[in-house]
Amino acid sequence: MRLYTYHRSSASYRVRIGLEWKGIDREDRFVDLGKGQQLEAAYLEENPEGRVPLLVDGDVRLGQALAILEYLEEKVPEPPLLPKDLAGRARVRQLALLVVADIQPLQNTGPLVYLGEALEVSDPLRFQWYKHWVHRGLSAFEAHLARDPATGRFCHGDAPTLADVCVVPQLVNWCRNAGGDLSEWPHLARVFEACQALEAFQRAAPERQPDSPDAPPQA
Amino acid sequence: MRLYTYHRSSASYRVRIGLEWKGIDREDRFVDLGKGQQLEAAYLEENPEGRVPLLVDGDVRLGQALAILEYLEEKVPEPPLLPKDLAGRARVRQLALLVVADIQPLQNTGPLVYLGEALEVSDPLRFQWYKHWVHRGLSAFEAHLARDPATGRFCHGDAPTLADVCVVPQLVNWCRNAGGDLSEWPHLARVFEACQALEAFQRAAPERQPDSPDAPPQA
Repeated sequence: MRLYTYHRSSASYRVRIGLEWKGIDREDRFVDLGKGQQLEAAYLEENPEGRVPLLVDGDVRLGQALAILEYLEEKVPEPPLLPKDLAGRARVRQLALLVVADIQPLQNTGPLVYLGEALEVSDPLRFQWYKHWVHRGLSAFEAHLARDPATGRFCHGDAPTLADVCVVPQLVNWCRNAGGDLSEWPHLARVFEACQALEAFQRAAPERQPDSPDAPPQA
Repeated sequence: MRLYTYHRSSASYRVRIGLEWKGIDREDRFVDLGKGQQLEAAYLEENPEGRVPLLVDGDVRLGQALAILEYLEEKVPEPPLLPKDLAGRARVRQLALLVVADIQPLQNTGPLVYLGEALEVSDPLRFQWYKHWVHRGLSAFEAHLARDPATGRFCHGDAPTLADVCVVPQLVNWCRNAGGDLSEWPHLARVFEACQALEAFQRAAPERQPDSPDAPPQA
């Protein structure tokens, strides 16, 4: 499979975790969002949404991280990233979407740039916006984890699922931008630690990617 | 099943379409977002996210419209809202997520209110923000429909799917707020018309809901 990715993109990060977890080999194509390459004509030909990640698997050409993860789950079911029972699958998808639909879109680079350039919102107020939406969303996520007996070592039970795959990049983003304190959210902090101990999550991390300035030397 | 809903909420609208399409009876509980009832303690006990829709089905208590729709699809497979083939399912989910993750979160009431109240963005600039993100997203949606031979009478083939279920409320929202002209997006306009001819879509419309001031008299 071929993955169009950017090291700092948290949506790409989700898909990298999913591919690593399932042991799927990939060929990376790097799209430098810092240089706006996602909006260049050559890339828009690949993905008219002008976003990463994009997965190409034979005739399948697929954007939207969560759609890619559901596709991988159906194509390569083991090891799973969704539980088998209906209620569990629904809960995991709800938690994943809390990140994908309620947090990440609002704190993504595009809206933050638009706030500054088009709406002339000051940097401190843009940071307030970032913190407001991420804090609100992660607090709701924590409330779900705290009140539901289905929470285990990971967000749902004792193995990682799409919920962990989606929330870990959001937590990494929060730590990078807002000082790294997760003590307000003890369940999230514990799940984060459990995920970060897994090789699949480690290998997918931004600083491990070849397009990162922090990448380790290639063999 | 019990649905916590609000007539003008486009996420609730998606779930109403799904329930109507599958012929699932429901009992409505109305949450008046105009009065902020979604943030009252009694409702936060039901859903700590402070959002509608929320579906309660026995022991299952589920937020996030797309997670609810996937749950309904697994619990009541017929008539389907996802194709059977892997590539088709992936494409439909990508289109659904283009609305759910890229358009709707940015133009939702919460962010628009926050722009005005916390960031002191003027009304004309808030409207510019609304139009920017909806226009960008619907244009990307149109590009997918235009270039992919899998597009049929509906977004994917000749029966409605989750892609139609998600995009129709967004189009209704655009028509209500931005004048109703879809001529720039001919494929979307055609799909919209095909959907609006279906009884399930009609019955789910905001103005048909009992909590709408435009609701028809109850029998």
